[in-house]
Amino acid sequence: MVRPMATNTHIHGEESLIQEFLAPLAAGYPGAFGLQDDCAAFTPAFGCDLVVKTDPIAAGIHFFPDDTPEDIAWKALAVNVSDLAAKAATPRAYLMALSFPEAPARDWMRDFARGLNEAQQAFGMHLIGGDTDRRPGPVTISITVFGEVPAGKMVRRGMAAAGDLICVSGTLGDAALGLRLRRETSLGPKLDLEPRHASYLVQRYLRPRPATGLCFALRQHARAAMDLSDGLAKDLGRMCRASSVGAAVDAASLPVSDAARRAFDADPSLFPLCISAGDDYEILCAVPPAEFDVLQRKAMTAGCPVTRIGTFGGGRDVTIRGADGNPLELPTAGWDHF
Amino acid sequence: MVRPMATNTHIHGEESLIQEFLAPLAAGYPGAFGLQDDCAAFTPAFGCDLVVKTDPIAAGIHFFPDDTPEDIAWKALAVNVSDLAAKAATPRAYLMALSFPEAPARDWMRDFARGLNEAQQAFGMHLIGGDTDRRPGPVTISITVFGEVPAGKMVRRGMAAAGDLICVSGTLGDAALGLRLRRETSLGPKLDLEPRHASYLVQRYLRPRPATGLCFALRQHARAAMDLSDGLAKDLGRMCRASSVGAAVDAASLPVSDAARRAFDADPSLFPLCISAGDDYEILCAVPPAEFDVLQRKAMTAGCPVTRIGTFGGGRDVTIRGADGNPLELPTAGWDHF
Repeated sequence: MVRPMATNTHIHGEESLIQEFLAPLAAGYPGAFGLQDDCAAFTPAFGCDLVVKTDPIAAGIHFFPDDTPEDIAWKALAVNVSDLAAKAATPRAYLMALSFPEAPARDWMRDFARGLNEAQQAFGMHLIGGDTDRRPGPVTISITVFGEVPAGKMVRRGMAAAGDLICVSGTLGDAALGLRLRRETSLGPKLDLEPRHASYLVQRYLRPRPATGLCFALRQHARAAMDLSDGLAKDLGRMCRASSVGAAVDAASLPVSDAARRAFDADPSLFPLCISAGDDYEILCAVPPAEFDVLQRKAMTAGCPVTRIGTFGGGRDVTIRGADGNPLELPTAGWDHF
Repeated sequence: MVRPMATNTHIHGEESLIQEFLAPLAAGYPGAFGLQDDCAAFTPAFGCDLVVKTDPIAAGIHFFPDDTPEDIAWKALAVNVSDLAAKAATPRAYLMALSFPEAPARDWMRDFARGLNEAQQAFGMHLIGGDTDRRPGPVTISITVFGEVPAGKMVRRGMAAAGDLICVSGTLGDAALGLRLRRETSLGPKLDLEPRHASYLVQRYLRPRPATGLCFALRQHARAAMDLSDGLAKDLGRMCRASSVGAAVDAASLPVSDAARRAFDADPSLFPLCISAGDDYEILCAVPPAEFDVLQRKAMTAGCPVTRIGTFGGGRDVTIRGADGNPLELPTAGWDHF
């Protein structure tokens, strides 16, 4: 593991940082101009809207300063791509502003660029521009992503209708368990988890994999969607407020990975992590009942299974019922910075 | 003056911060969805490229923590618009990620939003999305701007040709003098500056006014352009390297404001600020000699006068000659973060 401020050779000069480590990530994208111009030019596909988002991550807040540079880079891009995926937009390009309290070590930058390369290839994007500076405070990676949808086809947050099914992609709670395991290595044995399960959960925390494969199915069959980053309860509450609907979720139907299932079996008090903890980076969507079967089939084919977890209804309340049929006491809120 | 962490009522919750203070800045832009969705949708004008740029500013690095919130907001947007202006792109929209070490005071946010509103109206843009978080370190404002040019018409940095005239918009050195005056209030009287001159220079530092009016003239008559943010010598060097040309500048021809002229008359040792200090936010461009007269006329009409300061030539050297005809000893570099 290489930390940003390790004592191996440091980078001297912004141009060296940009040209040596970042310009290769822009290769092949004409409008990036080799990162040698002041701005990038992006030519949108004919008849498409651009879908844009910026979501910075900072050491000590969104990642551990001693996470590997590859993992940090992956996460910095993935948390942004997650928003594009939930809007049914195809990822295309990104800008990145980096700030460091001290010039980064060359090894750190090399590994960081490698992680970014892996992520941008996985998501089908190019780095097209950005900025670097030095300032006190944590290492910060501010990425702005650009995706495309056919004009007017961005899937909105506030369009859920009473009667729609509440669906989520993938499995919930893995990243929250992974974060606990990342913080407390003795927790794995305590929960009687096999190393491969513990490692799976930690990877789910370190390397979120947005359900980009759902893009076309969402456009065709979902009425509303958003990504889950601050916990199901909070994010579902946001979708309900934006859509002026209520929601009833059956906790027993929440999709859970094998690894998480074992952890919850060992310590049932961890189960609420599926509901109130952040970092899932899965997609929450509202699907008219008549569309569900075909959405589910297409989702499965795309390798991004979707599970029905409840129903949107009238009123404004979000109710999550436990296995006994009684509403769970929900934490009033997920993560809030202020 | 209100500081971000002043003791008046603080903001509680991201949604209050966004809906109360920022959403009004998105009013009237359909793709911003009232800042209530996860992403914004941007519909590019038919046949246009998007020109994009991100340039964050941080307290203590790019502005003084006790600058007024209105000035900080103005600068945060203006430094980004400056890049669009130099690329001949028409500003359209921006994303903004804000980070604070503590929840900001309501008064500070209100004034900040007011400054942003003033700036976005001046530049013809809307806020369309963004992010807010809390983290240690300085208050940081990370803006990503979107401009438009007819497809393929972004004015590049690296297209200057030997024989082209070196031109700059506006006047140089004002902001650098303004920064000195901002730091050392006794400097005004020392330089025998009238208060209105001192105040003009400080305003030039606090409120850069990118030459957006040059947009159409640049597209038609300039071969290359970039904005001046790190000092003429360094930025001209960058244009020369990107274009594989050299440059000869006549220091006596550098455009200087009345206020700056008085300061330089009082203390000639300050004159190199025109050459090596940052924050001008004017446009440097390469203009074929046959195009210069018409560019100059259009620039004057647009209220953004342009001055010829030298000529691009063969070789790779950047030479700036003083009044005596001898090359000045140039500082080897302008501002570099690393």
